[in-house]
Amino acid sequence: MSNRRLKGSRRTTPPPTPRRPRADKAARLDLGVLDGHLGYFIRRLQVWVFQDFIRTLATIDIRPAQYSVLVVIAANPGASQSQIAATLGIERARLARLLNKLEKRDLVERLESPSDARSHALRLTRDGNRTLKRARTLAAKHETRLAEILGPERHKLLIDSLRDSSC
Amino acid sequence: MSNRRLKGSRRTTPPPTPRRPRADKAARLDLGVLDGHLGYFIRRLQVWVFQDFIRTLATIDIRPAQYSVLVVIAANPGASQSQIAATLGIERARLARLLNKLEKRDLVERLESPSDARSHALRLTRDGNRTLKRARTLAAKHETRLAEILGPERHKLLIDSLRDSSC
Repeated sequence: MSNRRLKGSRRTTPPPTPRRPRADKAARLDLGVLDGHLGYFIRRLQVWVFQDFIRTLATIDIRPAQYSVLVVIAANPGASQSQIAATLGIERARLARLLNKLEKRDLVERLESPSDARSHALRLTRDGNRTLKRARTLAAKHETRLAEILGPERHKLLIDSLRDSSC
Repeated sequence: MSNRRLKGSRRTTPPPTPRRPRADKAARLDLGVLDGHLGYFIRRLQVWVFQDFIRTLATIDIRPAQYSVLVVIAANPGASQSQIAATLGIERARLARLLNKLEKRDLVERLESPSDARSHALRLTRDGNRTLKRARTLAAKHETRLAEILGPERHKLLIDSLRDSSC
């Protein structure tokens, strides 16, 4: 069932770039009940989108989670670690490890919070701002490629639909 | 910008179940350019869907990738490891580790392939079939909950849209 559908969509929308990772047609088996599971399809797309992102930003060695943290710190200078963790849905321990690495690379600095001695206010360093500027340009290229491959309507529909679900 | 949108969508579509993981409104910061990145939203939803799946199938200790493999083997008895890997987009080394665990739990067996001495034909054991039957029932409950939380139209739209992108 699923195979037929996949083949159907393949005929009408051929891969527009050679970078699109597709399994050999002949190797595709029946997906069985996976064909009705959102989690299966969302994971496939997520892995593929992240691979493209990582490849696109490889020259500046910025991975998706690092990019998210840099973007949100830049958009909210002085925000606390717990605010960043809550906004991005990252566990606090994982965010702490991530920030340690960014701090070692001199991209982020932790300042004493004027309002709460127990928490730190986060800010990008000058190098952090410079790296983020390059990262934004590369991430925009990645996003343009996604829109080309998925088709601009489907790309927009997916972003709008996922943003509204805001899990 | 993003905060306003998130708040807007939150007002019109309140969380219908208490299990829906939402950060404290007050803690949400501006997402900056993340608000235009498909990868960000798809990752958030994927993590949340997987957490719900793992929780729902915890009693039988079947995780998403294990479920996918069991489903596809059952739908294609005798398929080879490389066919399963290609269909699910799993690296062969990872699939081999996954199959070792399922074999140790006596859920999957590798038989000599009648057509190719170098490859194995995969099949579920009797226990494998029994476990998959329970897994399917639990996974269907998980899917029903997703449809309730996302709304049935958005749930269907996301599955159809992601299936057609078939990355």
